[in-house]
Order: sequence, then C-alpha cells, then structure tokens
Amino acid sequence: MARVLVVNPNSSVAVTERIEACVAPLQRVGDIRIDVVRLPEGPPGIQCQRDVEQVVQPLLARIEAEKADANVIACFSDPGLYAAREIAHGPVFGIAESAILTALSRGSRFGILAILPNSIPRHLRYAGAMGVLDRMAGDRALGLTVADLADADRTFDRLCSVGATLRDTDGADVLILGCAGMAHLRERLAEHLQIPVVEPTQAAVANACAAVTLGW
Amino acid sequence: MARVLVVNPNSSVAVTERIEACVAPLQRVGDIRIDVVRLPEGPPGIQCQRDVEQVVQPLLARIEAEKADANVIACFSDPGLYAAREIAHGPVFGIAESAILTALSRGSRFGILAILPNSIPRHLRYAGAMGVLDRMAGDRALGLTVADLADADRTFDRLCSVGATLRDTDGADVLILGCAGMAHLRERLAEHLQIPVVEPTQAAVANACAAVTLGW
Amino acid sequence: MARVLVVNPNSSVAVTERIEACVAPLQRVGDIRIDVVRLPEGPPGIQCQRDVEQVVQPLLARIEAEKADANVIACFSDPGLYAAREIAHGPVFGIAESAILTALSRGSRFGILAILPNSIPRHLRYAGAMGVLDRMAGDRALGLTVADLADADRTFDRLCSVGATLRDTDGADVLILGCAGMAHLRERLAEHLQIPVVEPTQAAVANACAAVTLGW
Amino acid sequence: MARVLVVNPNSSVAVTERIEACVAPLQRVGDIRIDVVRLPEGPPGIQCQRDVEQVVQPLLARIEAEKADANVIACFSDPGLYAAREIAHGPVFGIAESAILTALSRGSRFGILAILPNSIPRHLRYAGAMGVLDRMAGDRALGLTVADLADADRTFDRLCSVGATLRDTDGADVLILGCAGMAHLRERLAEHLQIPVVEPTQAAVANACAAVTLGW
Amino acid sequence: MARVLVVNPNSSVAVTERIEACVAPLQRVGDIRIDVVRLPEGPPGIQCQRDVEQVVQPLLARIEAEKADANVIACFSDPGLYAAREIAHGPVFGIAESAILTALSRGSRFGILAILPNSIPRHLRYAGAMGVLDRMAGDRALGLTVADLADADRTFDRLCSVGATLRDTDGADVLILGCAGMAHLRERLAEHLQIPVVEPTQAAVANACAAVTLGW
Amino acid sequence: MARVLVVNPNSSVAVTERIEACVAPLQRVGDIRIDVVRLPEGPPGIQCQRDVEQVVQPLLARIEAEKADANVIACFSDPGLYAAREIAHGPVFGIAESAILTALSRGSRFGILAILPNSIPRHLRYAGAMGVLDRMAGDRALGLTVADLADADRTFDRLCSVGATLRDTDGADVLILGCAGMAHLRERLAEHLQIPVVEPTQAAVANACAAVTLGW
Repeated sequence: MARVLVVNPNSSVAVTERIEACVAPLQRVGDIRIDVVRLPEGPPGIQCQRDVEQVVQPLLARIEAEKADANVIACFSDPGLYAAREIAHGPVFGIAESAILTALSRGSRFGILAILPNSIPRHLRYAGAMGVLDRMAGDRALGLTVADLADADRTFDRLCSVGATLRDTDGADVLILGCAGMAHLRERLAEHLQIPVVEPTQAAVANACAAVTLGW
Repeated sequence: MARVLVVNPNSSVAVTERIEACVAPLQRVGDIRIDVVRLPEGPPGIQCQRDVEQVVQPLLARIEAEKADANVIACFSDPGLYAAREIAHGPVFGIAESAILTALSRGSRFGILAILPNSIPRHLRYAGAMGVLDRMAGDRALGLTVADLADADRTFDRLCSVGATLRDTDGADVLILGCAGMAHLRERLAEHLQIPVVEPTQAAVANACAAVTLGW
Repeated sequence: MARVLVVNPNSSVAVTERIEACVAPLQRVGDIRIDVVRLPEGPPGIQCQRDVEQVVQPLLARIEAEKADANVIACFSDPGLYAAREIAHGPVFGIAESAILTALSRGSRFGILAILPNSIPRHLRYAGAMGVLDRMAGDRALGLTVADLADADRTFDRLCSVGATLRDTDGADVLILGCAGMAHLRERLAEHLQIPVVEPTQAAVANACAAVTLGW
Repeated sequence: MARVLVVNPNSSVAVTERIEACVAPLQRVGDIRIDVVRLPEGPPGIQCQRDVEQVVQPLLARIEAEKADANVIACFSDPGLYAAREIAHGPVFGIAESAILTALSRGSRFGILAILPNSIPRHLRYAGAMGVLDRMAGDRALGLTVADLADADRTFDRLCSVGATLRDTDGADVLILGCAGMAHLRERLAEHLQIPVVEPTQAAVANACAAVTLGW
Repeated sequence: MARVLVVNPNSSVAVTERIEACVAPLQRVGDIRIDVVRLPEGPPGIQCQRDVEQVVQPLLARIEAEKADANVIACFSDPGLYAAREIAHGPVFGIAESAILTALSRGSRFGILAILPNSIPRHLRYAGAMGVLDRMAGDRALGLTVADLADADRTFDRLCSVGATLRDTDGADVLILGCAGMAHLRERLAEHLQIPVVEPTQAAVANACAAVTLGW
Repeated sequence: MARVLVVNPNSSVAVTERIEACVAPLQRVGDIRIDVVRLPEGPPGIQCQRDVEQVVQPLLARIEAEKADANVIACFSDPGLYAAREIAHGPVFGIAESAILTALSRGSRFGILAILPNSIPRHLRYAGAMGVLDRMAGDRALGLTVADLADADRTFDRLCSVGATLRDTDGADVLILGCAGMAHLRERLAEHLQIPVVEPTQAAVANACAAVTLGW
C-alpha cells in the first residue's frame, strides 16, 4: 500500500487532529494511506519568518527518514519546500503552492485570508516567485494569533468580514484559507460568501494522492 | 455514486479509447465513476482555431445535458471552458489549464510539446490569460498531424527530440504533452528525458475527482 | 472599390443602426465602402460567455462568405477573432482589441466600462492574453442589461458615475466603452469626465480602413 | 480642412521625402491634409540617445507653433512624445508607439528590426514603459548606419536575413521596421518573409487621421 | 582625490543648498569630494514633462565638461539619464532610479510621494521601463507646487497624510520622497509613519561614492 | 564607531579571507568598521538548497547576538534574509539582492554567472520574488564546484566563456558574479568582456555602509 506523508511542522496536537480530519475524505480513496504527523520539535504555531526557518531542519530530517511515496508540508509558508524536493523519496507538495494552483482553476482572481499582517509580504514574495501575481486580487489579514484560531465563532466572523472585503473591494472570486487549521470552516464560509473557498491542506493532499495513483 | 464526465470533443473512437485507458488508474479510487465520451458531431481531430470553435456548441449541449458532478473537456485548446462553467451542474476542468497548473508544482519552468506550429500562438495567449507566462520556458511543435500521432514510434522519436530541445535550449524542467492522445507515451518520455512529463487529461481528471471527493 | 465588412454578431436592428451611424464619419474617407451587417442567427444581445460562443459559427460563415478586404467583429468580447483570422480573405479586427490598443496611445492607464459584472473576468483574461494588464487601471460594470442600454439618459448617468470612479479611484486617464452600442454617448461622456473616451467599433473600423488603404 | 503635421526630427531632405511618399496613400482620404516637415535644426540622422535628446526642444517648438489638428513625431525613438502631448493643440502620435500597437493586432509576438545595436536597450525600456514586453519576440540590429540605409539593396538583404532570424529563432510573427526611412522596402519584405511588416510612420499617420476624422 | 558631481538641473540656489546639506554625511567618508552644482540655465523648478526635456541639453553639456569620476542627476524625473551615460567620463546615477532600487531592499512594496499629480504617469512609465511595477504599491501626489515646498510645516503635514494613505490603503511598507528638495523632512517622516523613507539624492550619491570607491 | 557585520555562512577560512580582502576598499571610508566573520557551524560550501536551509539557524543566532549597526549575509542564496530582518538590530542586506539591484543601474539586462546548474531555479524564483524577471537576460552555470573555484585560472576561463554567452546570446550588458568568493576576478573579467561586472559582497557592504552613514 502506498503512503502519503503529511507533516504539520508545528507541535500542536489539536492542529494535527484538525488536519487529519480534513483529509479524511481523501483517506477513503484507493490504495493510499495518508499519515498525518506533527513535528514535536516545532513551535506551537508558526507566526513569523523566524518560526518558518526554525522548523526546516527537523522537517527535512523527518521527510528524508519517512521515505513516503509522496509528501505534504502542511504549513502555509511552505517551509523548506525546495530543499525537501532535493532529498525526498517521492514528490513534495507545499500547501500554499497547491492552494494557489487549485484556486487558479476555480476563479479569475484569488484572495488570501492571512492570519497575521506580517505574513502578507511573504505571500507577495511567494506569489511573485510562483509568477502568478497578476491573478492575485488581494491578501488581507484576520488579525488573529494562531491561538485565537481556537475560537471557531470569532474566527468565522473574521473570515466572513475579511472575505467579503476581498470579494467586494479587491475583486476576488475565489478565496484561499491562509493557514492549515481552518478546514472545518471552509464549507460554511463558501456558502456564506457564495464563492469557492480553497482549503490548502486538502488541495495539497489531493495532489499528492493523484501523483501516487498516476505514478508520476 | 458520483460521476465525472470526460468529453473528448472530437469524434475519434481511437482517441477516446486512449483517453479512457489513461484515466483508468483514477477509475479505481473511491466512489466515483469516470465516463469518457466522444462528441460524434466533432471533427476527427482538432487542428486549427476554427476546429476549436466548431465543437463548442455541441460540447456545451452535452455538458449541460449530462449533469455530471464534475466535467473535463479533453482537448488541449480547452474549447468553451468558461461558457461551460456558466452552465454546468458541477465544476469544469480544461485539460490545458489543469496540465499547466500541475506542471507548476513539478518544475521551475514548463515546456509544451505542441502538435502543430499553428497552436503555439494560442498557447501563448492562453498562458498569458492564465497569467503564468513567466513560468513558460518554451513551446515547440512536433510538426505532426493528429493522424500522424497514430504512429507511436514516429511520435515518440519526435517527442524525444523536441522535448530535449525544450529541456536543453529553453530550460524547461517539466514538460506538458500538448494533446489528449499521447498518454501511452508519457512514462517512457519522462524516463528518456529524466524530467517529469504531465499528461493533461490525467491532470484534469485527477482535479475533477478531488473536487468531487472533497465536495468543493 | 474596397470594402470593410462590419458584423454585429447579435440580431438587433437598433444596435446595428447605431453602429452604422457611429462609423459614418469613416465612411466618407477615400475609396472604401463600409458595410455594417447584423447576424440574424445571433441572440438579441450578448450577455454571457455562452452567448459569445453561440455566435461564433454563423459569424465565421458570414466572414468567410463575404470575402471583404477587411473585417470587423463588432462585439466587445471579440468572438471568434482568432478563428476568423484563419479563414478571412482580409485582415480581421476585434473591437475590444482595437479599443484597448487605441486607448494605450491616448492615456497612461485605461479603464473599461463593462455592461454587466460577469464580463469582467473575461476582460481580465483578455487583457492578460493581450499582455497589457499593467496598463489596465480598472474594469467596472454599469450593471445594466443590453436592453437597459436603450434608455440613453439612464445609461449616461451610469457611465458618468462609474467612469468617475474609474478615473478618481482606479487612476484611469482614458476610458473604453465596453459595448458596441454606446457610441452616441461617447463625446458627451468625454466632455463630462474631461478624459478621452474610446468607442470600440470606431477604433476597429478606423484600423480596418487604414489596413485597406495601406495595402497591409 | 483639417491638418495632420508629421515632423521628421532630423534634417535630412531625402528621409523627409521618403516619409512623404509613404504616407501619400493616406493623403487621398477625406478632408485631411498631411504636412510632412523636417527639422532643419536636427542632426542628419538620429543614431544615439544624445541625438534623441538634442532634437526635443526644436521639435516641441515646432509642434507648439504649428497648431495642427493632430501630430506625428516621425522618429522611432519617439523623442519628446509625452512633453509634446502637454503642449500640442491636438493629439500626438509617436511612430514607435503606433507601430508597436498596430503590430499587436497583426500577430502574436512582434520583432523589431533596429538599425544599430545601441538602440536595443532603448527599445526594451520603451516596450517596458508601454507594458507590452510579453508580446515582444525579439529585437535585432541590422548593424547599418543611417547613411548605409541609402543603399536599398544592401538594406533589403540585411532586413531579409535579420527578419528571418526574428521569425525563425525568436518566434516573431509580425515585424516592425525600426526607423522612419525604410517604407519603400516594407511590401517586398513582407512578401519575402511571408509575415506582416509594420511601417511605423504609416501606422502613426493612420492613427492621427482616424483621430481627426472621428473628432477624438 | 576622486570627485562625484551632483547636478541639480534647476536653477534654484535654495534647493541646491538643501541638496548639499543632505549629502554632507557622505562628504566625510574617504577620499571623495562631492560637488553639488545647479544649472543656471534650468527653470526655477521642474514641474512638467516639458521642463524635464528643457534641462537635458545644458545638463549633458555640464556633465560632459566636468569629467567627474561619477555623476548624479538630482531631479526625480532623471532627465537625460541614458544620454548622459553615453557621454559621461564616469558612471551616472539618476535619483529616481537609485531611490527605487534602494527602496526595493528596505521593504516589500514601495510608495512614491509625488509633488504634483501630473508626474504620476511619468513615474508609472519609469517603473514600467525599469521592470519593477509589481513592487510598486502606489503613487500619490502631495498636490503642492515646487514653490509650496518652501513651507516646511505644510509640506510635512501633506507628507504625513499622503504617506499614511500609501501605507494603509495601498500597502506600501517603504516610501520614496519624489523630489530632490525634501531631505530635511525624511527622518521625521520615517519616525512619524514608522516605515523607512528613502531620500533619492542621498540614495544616488551613496551609489556614486560606492562606485568610485570600488573602482567599478 | 559604527560596525557592519558581514557573515560568511560557510565555514571556509579561505573564502572568508577573500571576502575580507574584497571589502577592504570600503573599510577605509569614514567611521565604520567592517567585521567579516565565518560561521564555524556552516558547511565548507553551500551547493544545494539543503545547504542553504542548514545555515539559517546559526546565522540568525549570530546576527541577533552581534547587534551590529548593519548586517550583510555573504552567500548568494541570501539564506534567512527575511527572518534576519525580523530579529536584527540594524538593517540586513543579502548579497544576491544587493547585486541584482546594483546591476539594474549599470545595464539594461543582467546575466548571472551561477556556480552550479542546480542554483538556476532558485535564482529564477528569487528574481521572480523580487519582481525583476523582465530585466534578467539569462542565468548560466560555470559547472564548477565550490572546491573548483580555488583554481583561479580555470575559474577565470569559465567566467570568460560563460560570460561571453550571456552577453552575446542572451543579451546581458551587465553581469553578476553568483558567488561570494570570486571578487579577485571581477576587474579582469569586466575588462575582458568590456561590460560591467557586479561583485555581490561589495555591492551589499556598500549598501550597508551607506545605510549606517545616512542613519537610515
């Protein structure tokens, strides 16, 4: 049986469980087992560029050791993605990259729902490095800490109001959740705003499963 | 049981069977049935912009009538994609769009193996409309008619030599097969050139299955 | 005597007459006759992508049959433009393409006055395919149906207020009327807003006449 | 009777006469007189950026004094174009800008036939400032001085071989003559290379005539 | 002793003295003398494109005659920059170019504080010609004449409010003073807005000194 | 006395000494001391993306501890640049970023002399993230290991031939040395190829000194 490894590079058990729940529908398909693991060495949440850098070494070590058929890095800053591709046994998917590519087939201009304002320059650099800036409608922050995200109602309220601004002021017709831990709110948000919403870990794990199934 | 409809907009039975074969691995996964149909009203092959336009009406009618859970337009010019999205029951994926988006996560710069030189301006317009031109290394034609593609050896030879030029002269590190009917050569070509090769129908059907599985 | 064929791809007699009136000043110049025809097979107005696709076949047939020295497709979605170029006797000009290119020499950033919001993604794809997105200040919809456009006062009011937003908020210093049927309001709007306003059919017919005169 | 002023910013009588000849077909149309004048204060030819700068003052003075209904600056570096727009009575067209915009509706990617290699960085900056770099296939120099251009056979040979490289190596499907003085070779070159060739002064004068006719 | 020539292309003694003051800190370093001169032939201030063109000839003559080891053109429209590079003894730096390049290493997206609205299209063309438009957050005018700039309090108030809009509405995280004469307000503005502010003449003179020191 | 810290993130004493030598001319200017240090924890050379990631943690720790007035990361992959900016006492300059920005004022299109082919995708991503891809003429690898660089003659030969290809085939008119350890060859290479050559560490240290001098 083939295996897709999903590494949550922070140490949070709660976030890891939410990730596990959100990829469960993909779990049932075909001969692929999806293993979701957390990085005990990681910080409780990744909130700044330094946090991003800090998880790269243990993340690479884990991916190298696991020798999975495909790998997903489940943090929206895609830490260590290009280095992981050098050393991994199978292909490696970053959830930000996969989410953006998925959004490009579901709408005309995408908006990103960032957690904190300091991620926005990173997202802009990343969309620039990906060469897709012309399709980016906007990037706006919820202004919540990773800890705040535990409060689902408050998070949903912010997602609705920031999402509406991305849709109405910036012209986004598809949204991306800019964090691995908000999958449980995806469907309600899409219904509330009446535009597609992409959950990044689901997007990346779907890509990883397809790669394994097709032998790419 | 959910259903993904794959429409080959030309009338060729042979091409339709090759498409059916190439998506068979995705057929086995989960509760989704993949129906591959041809368009009897279509031309035997789509070789110029007029052919592209000609298939749009019957294609839209078919997609509207079938009410599938997700739809794939299996021609590399993505005929009628945006109109289909207006009228389809579920999401619609074009094989060119899906192939390009898939290639963006498998390499740094993609090259397209076009069948005929007159497709190249269309591909350039399409990559421009998608906003991903900065990631396109090149687009070179095999110089074969759709009929010529029936000769697998000759086709493979041309794929190897044109693919090598895209890799070595243009700097592509991932290639895209610019036609729905060359899936049987994908794996050999990837091995021969030692870079990933994306088969567009597989890419689009994988995306369609993921959308259905995730309820997006 | 040379001949420029202008095809209005919808079936409206009123719109066709307005087009005829707006190109009358170009009629008087040189040895060129400008024939404005409507497409009886077309819908009364083109309001969505499906309408766009639907007119392509009869439009191509008409252009092929007429064998004019130059051709203009008088619908702002430029339906079938690239296919028409494959089969037409003389060069073919789309009114959206010509309007955008004309605007680029009359201002620094152009704004488009769309009729309906659902055209905006199409315009963005088109400006992307043309490679001129960096010069586009904005695209805003009047929110009128093609039928509403019959009410000149209401249309003019909307043009003024949406045009002012494009100028003052988005930074446009030249505007494009995003529909073939608003020529009679062009001059008043330019005076009201004090920036140039490009009428797309006039722009395309002028280009067609120049091509014929110069033998290009 | 309306009047279009065409200023050749160099002092060459021969070049001015060639410009006059090439716009003669446009002369016959409608109620517009086209006046082609040279700048006696200009250098015999414009071959470097300093030459460009040097003609701006007398050029602006002439355009301001003439009060024409539309104006054309007939030098491929479009000297003083934006300043001329501030002070001219009617609209002002630069021949490089008009040629590039015209080429964009006649092909997919344009190539520029520069006279001297030192113009190429200027052309690149200009296409960048115009926001159309993605449509530029290449820019290659004939390696002839303005004086050499007097030898029509030698010039034609160079145009053919450099044009073929732009077409075959760089992928241009429309070419632009990068100098005001090669109009007499346009038609032969287009026939020889079998792709459209844009003559910049004709392109700009056609635009100027259209603007006057339409009252824009 | 090596020498950097800084030419203020307007005739204002007050502006020249302000420029001299702002580069004084660079004066003290190493074996380089920085000579700040004004152009007696220039206008009192450069406020439109015609003013820009008008100073080019005397500016080029001065730079050619001075034979400095490096040269700075101290006007934010970088008049004659490319021509100066053809004729100067040493390298030539424009203050707009240097300011923009400096800003790119101090923030994610830059905003320009223009003096007058009519400069904005020029700045957009320039950023386009430089190929850095994707990094430009916005460009907003103070709406002050060069004469108004003499009133430091009024100027500072406008800088603060327009700068705050660039930061908060447009997303700039680094600002550029779009004029050579506001250096004395740089530090206060940076403190007030809490983001870096680039003074263009200082940026260019620093580059010129580095080029001389390193022998580039 | 102010202090600029230059961290060579590899452990090589020889490379560190070469860096020290190349910034010596900047050492003499003003009241700034330039401290060049190596990272004992780093690998002997940085040759792949994994090496890049590996040095980030000790590099950040060093920069944070040193509390210099300005900081330079002396490795052409700019490891940890954005994280360093979050935690450093003064501004932080990456040598790749500084080299590219410097090159943009010394030529029209830059070429990068990479050491190994596997760096090229990283450089393309970086230029994309910087938003300057339109100014990049090409990126070609010497095909030397960091160890090979010790042989100055062989390195110089490769620099000359690869640099000539960047200049003549790709159209670069300014080159960038894509490694911190080739400063001693810069001047000879610039003379040999007759176009400017930017040495990245010198570029970054010059920027750092300017920032300190100006109090930015």
